[in-house]
Amino acid sequence: MKALLIIAHGSRRQASNQEVSALAEQLRQHPHNDYDLIESAFLELAEPAIPDGVAECVSQGANEVIVFPYFLNSGRHVTEDIPEILDQVRPQYPEVCIVLSQHLGASPVMPDLVLQTAGKAAINPA
Amino acid sequence: MKALLIIAHGSRRQASNQEVSALAEQLRQHPHNDYDLIESAFLELAEPAIPDGVAECVSQGANEVIVFPYFLNSGRHVTEDIPEILDQVRPQYPEVCIVLSQHLGASPVMPDLVLQTAGKAAINPA
Repeated sequence: MKALLIIAHGSRRQASNQEVSALAEQLRQHPHNDYDLIESAFLELAEPAIPDGVAECVSQGANEVIVFPYFLNSGRHVTEDIPEILDQVRPQYPEVCIVLSQHLGASPVMPDLVLQTAGKAAINPA
Repeated sequence: MKALLIIAHGSRRQASNQEVSALAEQLRQHPHNDYDLIESAFLELAEPAIPDGVAECVSQGANEVIVFPYFLNSGRHVTEDIPEILDQVRPQYPEVCIVLSQHLGASPVMPDLVLQTAGKAAINPA
């Protein structure tokens, strides 16, 4: 059973965190989704934390967890913080394959998405 | 003359900031780019700051600057910090139209991009 665990940074603004839950729900219902379950977790400032997100996937029966950093740049969070947390979590689940995925910003189609999105009116303009 | 100013968060890790400059360069050379100039700036932790990015666009002749938050979630940075900075900057350039764009994460194709990207091997695995 294969799980996708989306890791977002986390915000003090609850509406921002709810966007991540909403994204997970959109992915569950996406026609191209082939994950058995999809959960989300936060690096900081919001719950669930990453270890709790992994625990949730395992408790639902996952034996493979793809950990996806929903981050744009390969800053310290992506290159150090998330890998370190996973290194701490893995020994708790020796029977589970916990794999760190490429982060979102590494997508080669990002420039296309920027050009598609830039210039559309902000939903919350200044 | 229409400019696109990409606003990223900024990181203490210089390689992460350089990814934003590289994205701007990819966009300049993109076949679907119809901006006369494309620059990037950072909310914090890196240079140039947003006011300096706007100044650079104007100094190159822009009379319209589309400010694009390269952010995934509508946290405080997108809903408060960037709009406030633009409100402070606009009076300096009364002849320039400075428009805040939708942020990247608001794109309706984000779920597709997540499914395309998740599961690809991390370039810097743990």
